[in-house]
Amino acid sequence: MKKTIIEKAAFCLPWTQTLLGTQVNGKPNFMALDWLTRVNLAPAMLGICVGKGHASHAAILRTGEFSVNVPSVDMLAVTDYCGVVSAANTDKSKLFDVFYGQLKAAPLIQECPINIECRLVQNVDLPTNTLFIGEILNIYSEEKFLENGKPDISKTRPFLLTMPDNRFWAVGGQVGNAWRDGVKYKEKLAAGTPRE
Amino acid sequence: MKKTIIEKAAFCLPWTQTLLGTQVNGKPNFMALDWLTRVNLAPAMLGICVGKGHASHAAILRTGEFSVNVPSVDMLAVTDYCGVVSAANTDKSKLFDVFYGQLKAAPLIQECPINIECRLVQNVDLPTNTLFIGEILNIYSEEKFLENGKPDISKTRPFLLTMPDNRFWAVGGQVGNAWRDGVKYKEKLAAGTPRE
Repeated sequence: MKKTIIEKAAFCLPWTQTLLGTQVNGKPNFMALDWLTRVNLAPAMLGICVGKGHASHAAILRTGEFSVNVPSVDMLAVTDYCGVVSAANTDKSKLFDVFYGQLKAAPLIQECPINIECRLVQNVDLPTNTLFIGEILNIYSEEKFLENGKPDISKTRPFLLTMPDNRFWAVGGQVGNAWRDGVKYKEKLAAGTPRE
Repeated sequence: MKKTIIEKAAFCLPWTQTLLGTQVNGKPNFMALDWLTRVNLAPAMLGICVGKGHASHAAILRTGEFSVNVPSVDMLAVTDYCGVVSAANTDKSKLFDVFYGQLKAAPLIQECPINIECRLVQNVDLPTNTLFIGEILNIYSEEKFLENGKPDISKTRPFLLTMPDNRFWAVGGQVGNAWRDGVKYKEKLAAGTPRE
């Protein structure tokens, strides 16, 4: 099948939807955040990408602290609202029950199944955005979301965003096991099974 | 409900599974890659996180080029295999039909619905990993995966990884519209509807 070149923004990789927590004017503030990834294994670090115009951007530069909260699909509308309005003209501090962990400027959302508390370790200054690299200090969850001490996404029920079609998606069912399905494939290759 | 602190690696955010393409010993090589994000809006840039011990890590440092390919769920086993074996002792160049775009050291996988071709612009050296920042030069897809010129993930059918439970997940159905559901929530707030 012939390949075609598409516009550079249009690759529609699903991103997990999160809420970035910062302290703005002495109050908790939350912004919809989709561009983030683990960036270091040990110590555990998270990289988050924030546009330079955002109130959250200035807050992280000022405080050196932030949180990443993972909402469940039940929180979709209020999460999207946090991406629609700015702290510059809207107080978002009362939308959620807020708690704090080790840090004073990394507000955490009680209603979110997963809360990640980060201290800034490095800024990577890029043309329109800053990539903030934070060390993960603590991660919070609730027993009801855990299976063998690890969160189970069939219980935390996160949701995904694709851009630029701007759609939210649920997570579907389990389809495989990492580092195990590949080993089976290796055994099949060794047994001379032709390439799939 | 009481929050509990969980281990720092155990937040189980679903990551979209991809295949990192590099040129190793003059041959295309592919590695399972999960830790990546957009890091800049304009120009479009992608940040990918690679452990320092990987052959792909050395290849990117040497060539300054890489690709990110998004497999469909049908390619799960061979994708996981690319994360199980190393280019140091296994030739992965024949696993896929490979094509090249603008770059000579960024091999692209014909079978993957989405192919992203990147030129390295910056390395962020972290303790155990390097975050490679690449400018997106071209993105390739096929007409059959597009809707209004944009990939439709109900057609490209990517899959997701959670760690450390090491499970793969399908993407579920559409559950909302970004920047629209939040506007409706704003209208409800303005109309005095109590907080959800």
